[in-house]
Amino acid sequence: MEKSTLITGGARSGKSALAERLTLSATGRGVYIATAQAFDDEMKSRIAAHQDRRGPEWQNVSEPLDLCGALTNTDGGDPRLVDCLTLWLTNLMLGDHDWRAAGAELTKTLRHQTAPVVFVTNEVGCGIVPENKLARQFRDAAGWLNQTVAEACDHVYLCAAGYPIRVKPNDNPF
Amino acid sequence: MEKSTLITGGARSGKSALAERLTLSATGRGVYIATAQAFDDEMKSRIAAHQDRRGPEWQNVSEPLDLCGALTNTDGGDPRLVDCLTLWLTNLMLGDHDWRAAGAELTKTLRHQTAPVVFVTNEVGCGIVPENKLARQFRDAAGWLNQTVAEACDHVYLCAAGYPIRVKPNDNPF
Amino acid sequence: MEKSTLITGGARSGKSALAERLTLSATGRGVYIATAQAFDDEMKSRIAAHQDRRGPEWQNVSEPLDLCGALTNTDGGDPRLVDCLTLWLTNLMLGDHDWRAAGAELTKTLRHQTAPVVFVTNEVGCGIVPENKLARQFRDAAGWLNQTVAEACDHVYLCAAGYPIRVKPNDNPF
Repeated sequence: MEKSTLITGGARSGKSALAERLTLSATGRGVYIATAQAFDDEMKSRIAAHQDRRGPEWQNVSEPLDLCGALTNTDGGDPRLVDCLTLWLTNLMLGDHDWRAAGAELTKTLRHQTAPVVFVTNEVGCGIVPENKLARQFRDAAGWLNQTVAEACDHVYLCAAGYPIRVKPNDNPF
Repeated sequence: MEKSTLITGGARSGKSALAERLTLSATGRGVYIATAQAFDDEMKSRIAAHQDRRGPEWQNVSEPLDLCGALTNTDGGDPRLVDCLTLWLTNLMLGDHDWRAAGAELTKTLRHQTAPVVFVTNEVGCGIVPENKLARQFRDAAGWLNQTVAEACDHVYLCAAGYPIRVKPNDNPF
Repeated sequence: MEKSTLITGGARSGKSALAERLTLSATGRGVYIATAQAFDDEMKSRIAAHQDRRGPEWQNVSEPLDLCGALTNTDGGDPRLVDCLTLWLTNLMLGDHDWRAAGAELTKTLRHQTAPVVFVTNEVGCGIVPENKLARQFRDAAGWLNQTVAEACDHVYLCAAGYPIRVKPNDNPF
């Protein structure tokens, strides 16, 4: 298993299931780093249901903001799955954090990891330009973050209908 | 020609033209199973115009809901083209049918078909999260249906700018 | 370097950076044909900032409408980069020009070019169907233009997270 992988794709394209399978492929165990925040009881029960579904082979870590800390704390053991970068970016933007600095720090942290990391992220830029200004800013930021993390990863896949298309490495001449 | 193929892609990405070419490639003839519903005269004339464009090599079947029945009734002859799954899902949801059960039944029916089937469907999950709740539910359902049918198909292609990208089978390790 | 290439992808997927790299790969110099229109001072300063970033290896041409004229005028020298077709289509539609005729003329012009051309365009059809009628017409037109130019090009790539996926030529059987 490669040290770092980015799995991108649209909503419900099968990204998380593929990421789970890839993460478990090395040792049969994985660390699930969830960036989702439980703002209310409905969200709390959804997150609990997700953890139950995943089973005892997963160690669950919840970290909405300090992703670098979570990666450093869990390094040296089983592969980690970060689900997902788009929610992490949302949390950073809602909390008025410097998301560009956070993205740059993430790629730096990634360089020093010894256990594998699989990132899940979303394609959000393939629709009509949103009329809402915040939505336009978010899709620009998400595109920037995806490119930044992809450049730091060994492998990148794009999911469609539950299957991965290889994006990096590729044999294109540029 | 493989027994079952799913062709997905964005609006106006060339999915239907590719599906028509693939369907006709085996015998030069095909059965066109259209899931569009003609609610008004404008829609009726658009559907009639589409049928005229396709020419006499096509047998036209219109079936907005009972796709399994349409496949069973047309089995044993020329390849079938189902255009499209996204409209079928829309019809199921608008009519308050159990679309999960219908999707599961479709994959079961597919297993017993002897003549080839080519499905056309849409990528609807690669934009910004819609503000409209029904739109979010629809894109979740469409993603689920695409994954479910893709798993039951021998081949999956993603269309971009009129050309197919192979999604399944692939040589990725997961 | 092939004579003509289309690079498509979502917003902030790395299309322009890849197109710049490809365009410069032949001679180390390129002609940048920008279709963006500067309607106000903010836009003017953004365009100026883009030109500064690109550096002296680029000759900058601004042409919002007469793309065929711009290609003919710049033929016979360094490779050209057209950034982007989606803005060109926007300009054509806003000015009430016949965009289908313009697209057809573009493919005709392309046939007679001797220096390479790299086109950048956008995927806008992979989200939920827009509620806005003009947005639906635009995404239909954009899909048509992408298919039309792709058919006339030697190579087509789809960008995801900063990396190109090869779309044309491909080894699919249809």
